[in-house]
Amino acid sequence: MFTFEKQIRVRYADTDQMGYVYYGNYAQYYEEARTEAFRALGYPYKNLETEGIMMPVRSMNVRYYMPARYDDLLTVKVIIPEMPLAKFIFDYEVYNEEKILINQGSTILVLIEKNTNKILRCPDDLKKIFAPYFS
Amino acid sequence: MFTFEKQIRVRYADTDQMGYVYYGNYAQYYEEARTEAFRALGYPYKNLETEGIMMPVRSMNVRYYMPARYDDLLTVKVIIPEMPLAKFIFDYEVYNEEKILINQGSTILVLIEKNTNKILRCPDDLKKIFAPYFS
Amino acid sequence: MFTFEKQIRVRYADTDQMGYVYYGNYAQYYEEARTEAFRALGYPYKNLETEGIMMPVRSMNVRYYMPARYDDLLTVKVIIPEMPLAKFIFDYEVYNEEKILINQGSTILVLIEKNTNKILRCPDDLKKIFAPYFS
Amino acid sequence: MFTFEKQIRVRYADTDQMGYVYYGNYAQYYEEARTEAFRALGYPYKNLETEGIMMPVRSMNVRYYMPARYDDLLTVKVIIPEMPLAKFIFDYEVYNEEKILINQGSTILVLIEKNTNKILRCPDDLKKIFAPYFS
Repeated sequence: MFTFEKQIRVRYADTDQMGYVYYGNYAQYYEEARTEAFRALGYPYKNLETEGIMMPVRSMNVRYYMPARYDDLLTVKVIIPEMPLAKFIFDYEVYNEEKILINQGSTILVLIEKNTNKILRCPDDLKKIFAPYFS
Repeated sequence: MFTFEKQIRVRYADTDQMGYVYYGNYAQYYEEARTEAFRALGYPYKNLETEGIMMPVRSMNVRYYMPARYDDLLTVKVIIPEMPLAKFIFDYEVYNEEKILINQGSTILVLIEKNTNKILRCPDDLKKIFAPYFS
Repeated sequence: MFTFEKQIRVRYADTDQMGYVYYGNYAQYYEEARTEAFRALGYPYKNLETEGIMMPVRSMNVRYYMPARYDDLLTVKVIIPEMPLAKFIFDYEVYNEEKILINQGSTILVLIEKNTNKILRCPDDLKKIFAPYFS
Repeated sequence: MFTFEKQIRVRYADTDQMGYVYYGNYAQYYEEARTEAFRALGYPYKNLETEGIMMPVRSMNVRYYMPARYDDLLTVKVIIPEMPLAKFIFDYEVYNEEKILINQGSTILVLIEKNTNKILRCPDDLKKIFAPYFS
C-alpha cells in the first residue's frame, strides 16, 4: 500500500451559496493530491503525458460526510491500495483541521496511448517505482 | 419513475488539456439537469432555499465511458427512480450527439433545515408533485 | 457593428458563499456568448481549431455593478465594435431578468497558428462574414 | 506599498484544450494570493465575514502575456499600491518558473455590510495594520 498526504486550502471560488465547498470540486482536490503523490514517488504525472501517455478517469465515487468551508486547511490522504497493472485505483480521505474525516472518495484511472487511443499496461519504470510498496 | 432531459453545450472552460471535459465537471452538468427537472415539475429548487431548506449532496458516483469534447451538445437524462421520502436519488445518463451513452452517474441528496441543520423528510407539497410518477 | 444575445442560466456551481456569482465566472459567460455569436455568424469557433488556428485571450476587463445570483436567467449581449483584422475585440453587457445592466466587460483575442505559434491576421473567409456588419 | 508572494501550482482542472490555463482561472489565483496576503498581515479575510463584512470585487483587469501550463509552479505577487480607505486596490504579477512575467492584473474591491448592503470605509483595526506600509 502506498499513502501520501497533501494539504489544500479551500478557495472562495470553491464555495457555493450554501457556504459549502461545491460537491463537484472535490474532484479537483483529489487530482491535486494524486499529482503530488506521483511527484513524491519521483515520477511526475506530467512526464507520462510527455511520453505520449494520458491517464483518463474511468470512474469516481464520492461520499460527503460533513461540509468543507472557505479557508479550511484540508488534508487529503491518497491511498493506492493495490499494485497498478492495467488500472490505477486511488482512494481519498479528506480531513478537516480537527482531523475529522469529512469526505471520502475513490477513482479508477487507466493509461491510454495518446496517438492510438489504445489502453496500456503500467510501464516498467512506473512498476519498479510502485513495487516496494506492494511486496 | 420520473425522467427529464436537458441539453447542455460543452464550454471551452469545461475542457482540459487532454481535449476532454474535465472529469469533475460532470457534477455541474448533473446539477444543471436536476435543477431543470425540478423546474419542469413546477417546483423550482430555488424555492426550497427560500423556505429555509437546503439540499446537499450525500454521495455521487460517476462512470466515464467516452470523452465529451468542446462544443458537443450533450443530452443529460435525469431519472428519479423512486419516490423521494428521506432521500432523493437522481440517476443521470449523458448522451452525445450520436446518441451514444458516454457517461452515467448517480447522486443522493437529502433535505436539511438551514437554521437547525436537521435532516427533513420530503415536504407534503413536494410529495404531491412526485406522487403521480410513482403510483 | 455586430451584436448578438445569449441567455445563460446561473448554476449553483457558479455561486460563492456570498450568494453571488463568483467574480471569475463571468469569463465563462463571455466565452459561451461569443461562441454562440460565432455560430450565429455561420462560422463555429470549433472550425478555427480544426484548421489549426487557436484564439487565445490577450486581455480582459470586467466591471461588476450588481451581483448575479443562483438561477438568474442572464442575457449576455456580445458586441463586436470594429472589423477584426489583427485582433478581435468583443464587448459584453450582462443583463438580469429585470433588464438591468449588472456587469460589463471586454476581451481582446488574437489568432495564432497552432504549430508555429505565429500571430495570424483574420482569414479571408472570416473577413467576408464580418464585412457586411462594418460597411 | 505592501507586497506579498504566493506560489500556486497549476492543476489539470485549470487547463483547457489549448493546453493553457483557461483565461478565467487567473481570478482564482488572484483570490488565493490576496487571501494569503491578508493572512500574512495578521488579519485573515475570513474574519471580515465573521464580523458581517463582505468584500465584493468591483472591477478586474487582466493581461495575458504568455500561457501558464499544467503543473507550472507560478509565483503570484500581490501589490497593494495605496492605503485602502473606501476601496482596496490589489495589483497582481504572475511569474513562471523562469521568473518571466506571464500575466498581470488588477482588482478593485469594496467593503459592504452584509445585512444592510451599505458600503463601508476601511475599519480602524485594518487601517492600523496597513498604516506602516504607507507612511
